[in-house]
Amino acid sequence: MNNKRIVVALDAMGGDYAPSVVIDGAYIALLNYKKKDPNFLLEYLIFGDSDLLTALVDKIPLLKSSSTIVHSEHKVAADDRPSYALRNSKKTSMGMAIESVKQQQAHAVVSSGNTGALMAISKVSLRTLSGISRPAIVGLLPTINHKVVALDLGANAECESSNLVQFAIMGDAFAKVMLGKDKPIIGMLNIGSEDIKGNDVIKSAAQVLLNQECLNFYGFIEADDITKGVVDVVVADGFSGNVAIKMAEGTAHLCRKILERAFKSSVFAKIGYLLAKSSLKSAFKSIDGRYYNGAMLIGLNGVVVKSHGGADKVAFANAVETAVELSKHNINHKIIQEISLLQQHMSL
Amino acid sequence: MNNKRIVVALDAMGGDYAPSVVIDGAYIALLNYKKKDPNFLLEYLIFGDSDLLTALVDKIPLLKSSSTIVHSEHKVAADDRPSYALRNSKKTSMGMAIESVKQQQAHAVVSSGNTGALMAISKVSLRTLSGISRPAIVGLLPTINHKVVALDLGANAECESSNLVQFAIMGDAFAKVMLGKDKPIIGMLNIGSEDIKGNDVIKSAAQVLLNQECLNFYGFIEADDITKGVVDVVVADGFSGNVAIKMAEGTAHLCRKILERAFKSSVFAKIGYLLAKSSLKSAFKSIDGRYYNGAMLIGLNGVVVKSHGGADKVAFANAVETAVELSKHNINHKIIQEISLLQQHMSL
Repeated sequence: MNNKRIVVALDAMGGDYAPSVVIDGAYIALLNYKKKDPNFLLEYLIFGDSDLLTALVDKIPLLKSSSTIVHSEHKVAADDRPSYALRNSKKTSMGMAIESVKQQQAHAVVSSGNTGALMAISKVSLRTLSGISRPAIVGLLPTINHKVVALDLGANAECESSNLVQFAIMGDAFAKVMLGKDKPIIGMLNIGSEDIKGNDVIKSAAQVLLNQECLNFYGFIEADDITKGVVDVVVADGFSGNVAIKMAEGTAHLCRKILERAFKSSVFAKIGYLLAKSSLKSAFKSIDGRYYNGAMLIGLNGVVVKSHGGADKVAFANAVETAVELSKHNINHKIIQEISLLQQHMSL
Repeated sequence: MNNKRIVVALDAMGGDYAPSVVIDGAYIALLNYKKKDPNFLLEYLIFGDSDLLTALVDKIPLLKSSSTIVHSEHKVAADDRPSYALRNSKKTSMGMAIESVKQQQAHAVVSSGNTGALMAISKVSLRTLSGISRPAIVGLLPTINHKVVALDLGANAECESSNLVQFAIMGDAFAKVMLGKDKPIIGMLNIGSEDIKGNDVIKSAAQVLLNQECLNFYGFIEADDITKGVVDVVVADGFSGNVAIKMAEGTAHLCRKILERAFKSSVFAKIGYLLAKSSLKSAFKSIDGRYYNGAMLIGLNGVVVKSHGGADKVAFANAVETAVELSKHNINHKIIQEISLLQQHMSL
């Protein structure tokens, strides 16, 4: 039951390289879908400074024919407080893009702007799905053989066990759409110290999940199990989830730096690099952060995708494609179905 | 004020490859110190099955002349509960090795055994240092240019702000000894979501640390700042600290796997590997986990070093050398001094 036409609202003024990266990324996503599925229709509502945007979009006929530019007077700054951004949301490109989802003019919104503001405005404007008390940030991480879904990546520094149970349900639906798995394996992040295996919050959440037949709950995992690909979905509170994803990014970056240094350290190594170059490039594509760009603010009445603030056009295109896939496959409908299934067995 | 003779107690029956790895590792550490400092005297008390140990030690004259074997009837199993290990500690190699530190027969103890048991027995036998309410696990992580100290790596899943302040003091002393820094830069692990920057516990701990002139407190850092080497000491609760170190291990392992696959993917890549091999090996030594083996259970009246359960002989030797350095430089004396300095300014 895929939708054959999806409208994505773009906050063209958010992120370090706005609006040019947004426009170029939107065009790349458009080309990718033209190739993948010529019958599928992708359209944009582009919010921001209309003079600036018109000049950029006019240069790209294909994009122009698929887009409507909507002028916004202001934008959310990277250091705006969420409360400030919320008060002014009606006049900012971010706020207006989110509002277009609420008004059902767009299926999804993509922004590279301030995460706190995006979450605050989305929560107030779209409200949480029935049965979900707090939205989470969900994204993909690389493993040796496939991608893995992880949440919460930083929206909720502190969680109750009911939040973690809801994260598991939302992660399950997200993995079904983004990994194409029928019964994603769900693990809960814990620590390896035999002294104290976790805290009461995760213990009681795990207890609830163990008893759900409709979920494929694996149990506790440790952080080094994530990259091994032991599970398809990693459930964590927003503090440890954020530490996990940032530590993965930092360590991958460190490995690349060490590799670069090694290849520059001798003449033999330099020649070796030239010979292995194309193999290395395609291998490292599997952990290239750009292909993991696009985290969903999940648990809201609408698809809200956060692109990295420093995203380039390839990365931004990936965020747009994430928004399209989630909309096409009715992610929120899947979540609501699972919750009602679970509610027949328990009180969430 | 370095000690010229250090006695290390070895739990020879702990870890996946005990006792042979313990014996071989102890010998490597002995050789390393002979080379580094011929005037320094390293001696061992080796606890475990005396028949087995005598047979192994007798084959290595240098080790034999530096060691005393002490028979223990039992050992702590990898899956023993801490409470069980504690009750039987008088008869186990781990318990007896720790007791020898308490009785001042040894300066330090090294074990690859069950972490929970090691922590429980050490806490009861050695007790915490005056001014420290809870011991932590502290270790080293790689960055692009140097090593960084991180704690707590998993002893305390939940912490109060006073614990985090004490971890900062202990981390400072550890960095002075192990990194040789005069004024180590201390950072507190936090998350990057602008929505909620951390929780009350870390906020109030940071407030206390900001006001201490004797500590070089940097403020909050995010997990990807760790590998960038922004600070020398990372302070975290045991849950997020454990997630950080295991995620780093997992990601480094993933990068190596991807690299191996790339070098096998074509004939050119294979030849490239052969040319770059020696440069790659020496570069990757800087993130080889074996050279980071040896985490201290810090905050106790005695030096207790935990080696990885799966450590090989090189890794175990590194854990022994960590124990020696910490003992030589009177790590616990440094901690006590710092605490009394801070206590003049505040109530911890």
